[in-house]
Amino acid sequence: MSSPSFLAPAVILADPQMGENIGAAARAMCNFGLSDLRIVRPRDGWPNPIAQAMATRGAADVLNAARVYSRVEDAVAGLTRVFAATARDRYMQKAILEPEACVAACAAEAQLGAQAGLLFGSERAGLENDDVSLADTILTIPCNPEFTSLNLAQSVAVVAYEWQKLAGRVSVAAPALKDGVRMAGRADLVGLFEHLEAELDRVEFLYPPKKRPSMVRNIRNMWHRANLTYQDVQTIRGIITALTRTPKRRGGNGDT
Amino acid sequence: MSSPSFLAPAVILADPQMGENIGAAARAMCNFGLSDLRIVRPRDGWPNPIAQAMATRGAADVLNAARVYSRVEDAVAGLTRVFAATARDRYMQKAILEPEACVAACAAEAQLGAQAGLLFGSERAGLENDDVSLADTILTIPCNPEFTSLNLAQSVAVVAYEWQKLAGRVSVAAPALKDGVRMAGRADLVGLFEHLEAELDRVEFLYPPKKRPSMVRNIRNMWHRANLTYQDVQTIRGIITALTRTPKRRGGNGDT
Repeated sequence: MSSPSFLAPAVILADPQMGENIGAAARAMCNFGLSDLRIVRPRDGWPNPIAQAMATRGAADVLNAARVYSRVEDAVAGLTRVFAATARDRYMQKAILEPEACVAACAAEAQLGAQAGLLFGSERAGLENDDVSLADTILTIPCNPEFTSLNLAQSVAVVAYEWQKLAGRVSVAAPALKDGVRMAGRADLVGLFEHLEAELDRVEFLYPPKKRPSMVRNIRNMWHRANLTYQDVQTIRGIITALTRTPKRRGGNGDT
Repeated sequence: MSSPSFLAPAVILADPQMGENIGAAARAMCNFGLSDLRIVRPRDGWPNPIAQAMATRGAADVLNAARVYSRVEDAVAGLTRVFAATARDRYMQKAILEPEACVAACAAEAQLGAQAGLLFGSERAGLENDDVSLADTILTIPCNPEFTSLNLAQSVAVVAYEWQKLAGRVSVAAPALKDGVRMAGRADLVGLFEHLEAELDRVEFLYPPKKRPSMVRNIRNMWHRANLTYQDVQTIRGIITALTRTPKRRGGNGDT
């Protein structure tokens, strides 16, 4: 990988089924200036000879450098923004961006020295709701409304193509951290989610069980919208710890 | 086909090799609002069961309606503008447009009640120079300059995606012929080319033989740039006929 490319967005394929599509996605990434491929639970294992066979020069480098994960949470851990590609209306309180605006947002992260991620689901079913809940923004590719089921690799190609268009116009390789502020990474947010949800389970807030998944998603989405810094997450986790360690005494913190 | 779609640009695949790519191109067309597929000399014949197997609902309709030709000239005969997709510098005097500008030009044709075409070459070698010479404009997809070899179906997908983006913003379904002016179709131009070249061969203008192909291409490109109407082509052909029928008499047309 050449030096500035780490700032280009990562492509995360969740539960990809066909090696052909993984290989074709890698080729499109290579054509359009992306190189960081992350694969979660590939159906046919990894490395995948069919994916390798699809890879042209350059795409083979992308595949060889790909990282494989068993959970989307881990694949997005170091990223500051995650865009979930889905055509379906998820009834979630998330911003929805089309590819052109999405890659502009990715470039804004790159200019802060951070990295965004583009999350794509399986060929069969797209993204699971729980995977979407790890993203802060929905990425929707404009389509013929009668035929919205896009090929996985073509979806990657279209978004990567918009990245290339943008990268041709503006420099996205100049990190400039503003006053040392560091946005929360996905790992920070996932730590917050799991901390809070464990405490909410303990006090039976997430009840009844059949409503738990949607309640968890709604709470996670609220934090996503908040655009938290690393320090914000530490503060909130401190609050949760403080609230749960000892029962609050009426009248203050003990000084009165 | 629904009624306004005939105005959307046609996709012409010249010498496609793999059924997978034809099927995937049809799927992308369907996703992004294109329906007129024309296939020239498909390597594995037609219909192609592998292409059919790739076709989702909607894409099957595109494949079933596809027309097959043995010459690019015939496939583009009814079109008023043709864009040749190629990354290579052809050293030709033609305008070069990227996908966004290309589909805007296609929409302009549609608004005149005419139809443009997007011409793609084979997976192995892209377009032959003689095929490019049938187009008035080069279509270039911005790429990582180190890896400019795009997958055929992904190239179609990217251009079709730009068409869908544009079609979502403006109406391209309102034909409005200006004062009855009709732009020259490809068939009109090909007729002019063949007429002129036959006459130039007769007078041994296209000489020596090894330079003939490039001389022909340069002359064809000159006419492409001229943006001729149907009437212009008739006028030029009338001139060619007049110039070759009888030797011009010095002093005028016989009235003096």
